[in-house]
Amino acid sequence: MKPLNIGMIGYGFMGKAHTNAYAQANHFFESEHHPVLKALCARNKEKAQHFADNWGYESIETDWREMLKRDDIDAVDICTPNNLHKEIAIEAAKAGKMILCEKPLAMNTAEGEEMCKAVEDAGVANMVWYNYRRVPAVSLAKKLIDEGRLGQIFHYRANFLQDWTINADVPVGGAATWRLDAEAAGSGVTGDLLAHCIDTALWLNGGIADVSAVTETFVKERVNAETGEKQPVKIDDACSFMCHFDNGSLGLFESTRYARGHKALYTLEVNGEHASLRWDLHDLHRLEYFDHSDDSVVRGWRSIHVSDGDQPYMGNWWVPGLQIGYEHTFIHQVADFLKSLDTGEPASPSFREALETQKVCDAVLASADERAWKNV
Amino acid sequence: MKPLNIGMIGYGFMGKAHTNAYAQANHFFESEHHPVLKALCARNKEKAQHFADNWGYESIETDWREMLKRDDIDAVDICTPNNLHKEIAIEAAKAGKMILCEKPLAMNTAEGEEMCKAVEDAGVANMVWYNYRRVPAVSLAKKLIDEGRLGQIFHYRANFLQDWTINADVPVGGAATWRLDAEAAGSGVTGDLLAHCIDTALWLNGGIADVSAVTETFVKERVNAETGEKQPVKIDDACSFMCHFDNGSLGLFESTRYARGHKALYTLEVNGEHASLRWDLHDLHRLEYFDHSDDSVVRGWRSIHVSDGDQPYMGNWWVPGLQIGYEHTFIHQVADFLKSLDTGEPASPSFREALETQKVCDAVLASADERAWKNV
Amino acid sequence: MKPLNIGMIGYGFMGKAHTNAYAQANHFFESEHHPVLKALCARNKEKAQHFADNWGYESIETDWREMLKRDDIDAVDICTPNNLHKEIAIEAAKAGKMILCEKPLAMNTAEGEEMCKAVEDAGVANMVWYNYRRVPAVSLAKKLIDEGRLGQIFHYRANFLQDWTINADVPVGGAATWRLDAEAAGSGVTGDLLAHCIDTALWLNGGIADVSAVTETFVKERVNAETGEKQPVKIDDACSFMCHFDNGSLGLFESTRYARGHKALYTLEVNGEHASLRWDLHDLHRLEYFDHSDDSVVRGWRSIHVSDGDQPYMGNWWVPGLQIGYEHTFIHQVADFLKSLDTGEPASPSFREALETQKVCDAVLASADERAWKNV
Amino acid sequence: MKPLNIGMIGYGFMGKAHTNAYAQANHFFESEHHPVLKALCARNKEKAQHFADNWGYESIETDWREMLKRDDIDAVDICTPNNLHKEIAIEAAKAGKMILCEKPLAMNTAEGEEMCKAVEDAGVANMVWYNYRRVPAVSLAKKLIDEGRLGQIFHYRANFLQDWTINADVPVGGAATWRLDAEAAGSGVTGDLLAHCIDTALWLNGGIADVSAVTETFVKERVNAETGEKQPVKIDDACSFMCHFDNGSLGLFESTRYARGHKALYTLEVNGEHASLRWDLHDLHRLEYFDHSDDSVVRGWRSIHVSDGDQPYMGNWWVPGLQIGYEHTFIHQVADFLKSLDTGEPASPSFREALETQKVCDAVLASADERAWKNV
Repeated sequence: MKPLNIGMIGYGFMGKAHTNAYAQANHFFESEHHPVLKALCARNKEKAQHFADNWGYESIETDWREMLKRDDIDAVDICTPNNLHKEIAIEAAKAGKMILCEKPLAMNTAEGEEMCKAVEDAGVANMVWYNYRRVPAVSLAKKLIDEGRLGQIFHYRANFLQDWTINADVPVGGAATWRLDAEAAGSGVTGDLLAHCIDTALWLNGGIADVSAVTETFVKERVNAETGEKQPVKIDDACSFMCHFDNGSLGLFESTRYARGHKALYTLEVNGEHASLRWDLHDLHRLEYFDHSDDSVVRGWRSIHVSDGDQPYMGNWWVPGLQIGYEHTFIHQVADFLKSLDTGEPASPSFREALETQKVCDAVLASADERAWKNV
Repeated sequence: MKPLNIGMIGYGFMGKAHTNAYAQANHFFESEHHPVLKALCARNKEKAQHFADNWGYESIETDWREMLKRDDIDAVDICTPNNLHKEIAIEAAKAGKMILCEKPLAMNTAEGEEMCKAVEDAGVANMVWYNYRRVPAVSLAKKLIDEGRLGQIFHYRANFLQDWTINADVPVGGAATWRLDAEAAGSGVTGDLLAHCIDTALWLNGGIADVSAVTETFVKERVNAETGEKQPVKIDDACSFMCHFDNGSLGLFESTRYARGHKALYTLEVNGEHASLRWDLHDLHRLEYFDHSDDSVVRGWRSIHVSDGDQPYMGNWWVPGLQIGYEHTFIHQVADFLKSLDTGEPASPSFREALETQKVCDAVLASADERAWKNV
Repeated sequence: MKPLNIGMIGYGFMGKAHTNAYAQANHFFESEHHPVLKALCARNKEKAQHFADNWGYESIETDWREMLKRDDIDAVDICTPNNLHKEIAIEAAKAGKMILCEKPLAMNTAEGEEMCKAVEDAGVANMVWYNYRRVPAVSLAKKLIDEGRLGQIFHYRANFLQDWTINADVPVGGAATWRLDAEAAGSGVTGDLLAHCIDTALWLNGGIADVSAVTETFVKERVNAETGEKQPVKIDDACSFMCHFDNGSLGLFESTRYARGHKALYTLEVNGEHASLRWDLHDLHRLEYFDHSDDSVVRGWRSIHVSDGDQPYMGNWWVPGLQIGYEHTFIHQVADFLKSLDTGEPASPSFREALETQKVCDAVLASADERAWKNV
Repeated sequence: MKPLNIGMIGYGFMGKAHTNAYAQANHFFESEHHPVLKALCARNKEKAQHFADNWGYESIETDWREMLKRDDIDAVDICTPNNLHKEIAIEAAKAGKMILCEKPLAMNTAEGEEMCKAVEDAGVANMVWYNYRRVPAVSLAKKLIDEGRLGQIFHYRANFLQDWTINADVPVGGAATWRLDAEAAGSGVTGDLLAHCIDTALWLNGGIADVSAVTETFVKERVNAETGEKQPVKIDDACSFMCHFDNGSLGLFESTRYARGHKALYTLEVNGEHASLRWDLHDLHRLEYFDHSDDSVVRGWRSIHVSDGDQPYMGNWWVPGLQIGYEHTFIHQVADFLKSLDTGEPASPSFREALETQKVCDAVLASADERAWKNV
């Protein structure tokens, strides 16, 4: 077993999800490599220590630059707000560390280009946490499409609907709500939610050629969580866009935090010549599949409970009928990263792949700004 | 076109459902025969006239014996409370009328035997309104089973769940609530609801050999709707039973009027060696189907929207995707009755077939009474 | 009872649906007025006679101009392809006939304006068959929105997805496939399917200010059903658009005939501040409703089986739990038309109301053509 | 932090599920106590070592009696086939170890009585792994019932349906299929599946008074996995029973391994005077709830996505909308066991509580054997 010494930056929601993945991956997936929780880095020493103790990190740091200097760190995991991704990643690359970066890759395409150059120049392993690719049902969708079961694709549509910012008293900024602060987050739902939808779409259906988008900010002013002052809200509360894929299919995407009743409803649907499929994060263990070649009188959408040993990743878990959940997508991503170290094949999505999502996001925001179609 | 002159007895819920079926059948289904709404019979002359006018009955009668004397009546439709079925049917048979009798056939097996003998002696066409056989999804289930797609059957289960008598203020007796009056109805949910489940089961899965049942009456006393006096409730509010079918499969049936949240939830499921199917009256246009021969990674329950032209009865209605409803089951039954007149083949279910359901009901009630398994 | 003498033009799918509605409305809904199937008009005499006989039309005509001359016709129902609506409607108005016109109102806004002027100048009752307003679940949605239960609306989205033209061998033109012929239909999915979505949206959520649309024609050439020659396909196979409503909410609409697995999947969803609702034509008897004011631990989307007597139109049908179907939407529209005659209140949607949908369709097509946002 | 030194017996499916729970509990739930994976015991030394290495057990044993002698073991976890539960538990109690025993408690009630006496005489903490109580949705159901939201209960029904033994080539006995061997398992679906249903039922709805059951063995002979010889199958392939609860409600239970299409479909439904609820293991993160006090026009079954911080256990996991899975039920049970050590309150279900389920199972099997109602 070869140790993979992890230096984690951040202990928030994603810090927990990634840490759990490092702790669990080898329990269920075999690899020559074994993640070691070597160091946890965060500015607040007390909280960092508490998190480190709970998860078994061997040490803490309060300055990420110090952590990058350590020889006992092989890989850096970036779980900070988006506006810090670039600087940390570039420095980590210079320090020769592998980098696992939370999505979206960067604040914009220009930053992302710099980051790609940095990791490629340094020749370090790199990956972005677009975790939903590793939902077994989504991986199964990929397999079905790649096998040609859908035939020519006509339509791709995806939604990511939430409702947690309808309340105008939700503040902006601070640890809990930095996603509403344009300076920390870059954008609103586009970078936070649509980025997931776009990454999956590019993976499943190929490149996007052009987009026409609209954004909206329903609550125009909010109180800053730290200063207590009112400030204009500069992120997009909602964003929809239409697009053409390179393969000739039409795309339709929507994201919002104002869809009452939806907590985290990421859905996708692909309509092909021979078959269609759809998936929904609220029931992530199911894939809906329609196969036109079924005998006509018994043709219908199949609800596939993706929990059998021959379905992606599921042979490593329990028995048919028993579902796994959200956190497992990260475990799968770590398992695949470890396998990439075993085999020497690059992990996916790399920074370079994630940059494509960034380009679409930029085109979307520009299109909404200019009320015009934009090429990606 | 040959007229089929109908004499309808009763104008309640079933009187309306049957009348609508006579009015509509030829609009959607071709036949040499054409129902004519010749006479409506009911004791209350004013209400009878109102109903007759609305639906276009040519005449009214207030005494069913008078109606039986008329030469211009070919077929009598019995929509009275259960305790009148026997007498009317026997007299109608003697008068040489075809008989379409609302279910259950009779108050008990003994009565049913007399009725069968009467129609068979008279040689008159006869049918009982077990309408759920003619839900297209249920007819499709029949077709799939008969084609052998399920293979050996292991389990058959059915529920009929309602919640309308939970309120202890619902009275017993009278026009609206005669179903709670044992003298008019014979039994409670057994004859009213389980009879439907049993008829379908016998049709789909063959004969029942023995049963073990339990009944319950949750509200012990209710006010009589006509007298205003409290009286003991003698019908079964709920009834469950287990059984063996002749083909070796196990059956499980339940019915109640105390299942909060279910209005008329008739569901059935059949599990076979190769495939399973299930159906639900609350979404009657869908059949769920699981086929084990599907490729394992995309195997799942199919939700079949039974609205295509090659599915039972649906070629006579609208276009794929557009659903029909409850009332259409009666239209289909009339259409099939007319077809039986065209071809000379007996209509189904005949009195004799419906008698089998009566026998199971009797065994169920006896089993509950004696707390013992009973052969049918 | 006052007769309303109907002159029907066309005996296709819509001719049957409307005729059934006239035949059934009084059976279930009381009115002083009573539709009489006076005349059926179609060019093919034999087929016209067959249809008339089946439904009880008293006479036939083969030239609609002749029918307009008849004094015994009160109301004309236009069930022709779209390109004939204008001329017939204007002549019928001149002849003083009430007009019930199949949707979309016209080939375009300009035609629609002329038609509105004609009926308003003539002062004749007029209505367009946007039947989906009268699905009980959709009417219930309207009631809930109008009561303010949703609060401020943030999002409105609707789809109308079909799959019947994926096969490139489906011809264009002729009686069965005139909808693929731009000369007869005006447009493809926009006028056929999106028009329904738009009508409902305007009714539920108010006016649309501007749109950005995209259209696609996947199969570029098809054989003409009558000539057997290949010809370019000029209608839109698919159309999506984004929009702003006057109330500040965002709209997202999509329609296609290339969504494998969907027969006629019209869905709509409205997200408001306090509540959300959604509906789906494939299960038209259900309304999904989420109420944020529910106690938080038991909050969830409610699946409302719209079949109770206190829900729109349902008091006139069967009992709770028993569903109605597609054809009933037309019966409800006739019943409401008859009620409008009883009360003198105009029927809805009038030509003038339907013109608003036409304007949105025109803006959508222009936007797609010019790849630019267009005001309505 | 006080260590809780675990000695695990068995490394099969349940050994893995329990071990994972010990490894994960403190990561998500705070406690003064901290499980330590001290020793793994199994007869096959090589496999034991492999499992121990993977999960971090500090040592292995190949004889459970040796493990019981060790002073560094605080608690013994019994994950053996059922026929070894009694002996190990009694010896462990004598050795003063806490005991966490896989369900069902014992081969029969007599064994269970001895085991209860042993742990109670020894005064050691004890618990049985009826893990489904700790599905958040099921815990929520318990809370709703205990708050009186359902009012008087009329009906309780539960199913546990599988399909994995339909194939007659599945062998009996051996590590993988000991559940088909009556000598190792005691019974078939009754002890394996119905025991879960019964435990939950007793917890939610109180004691069961009497039962009437039927069992079936569809495949009469199978090959022994170890000897290769054909032998009669002595376990029950399917079992259904009806019952009366002490509170007057009716129960209906069914379990089988011959329900094609169902992998592990444990469903339960409770119908009360004011409300009903239902749950399904295949979508374990959802609870369906119907509240009759909802305004009638918007009344419907609510699909509650149990993933909010105020719902049982969920405040310790991710964010609303993100689901957890099967394995978490064990983590919750460990967390609750640790809490019981913190507080001194006994853990639940104790051996004594689990004995009640054993009594019902015995009555069920006796009833099926004798074809008669049996008191529990």
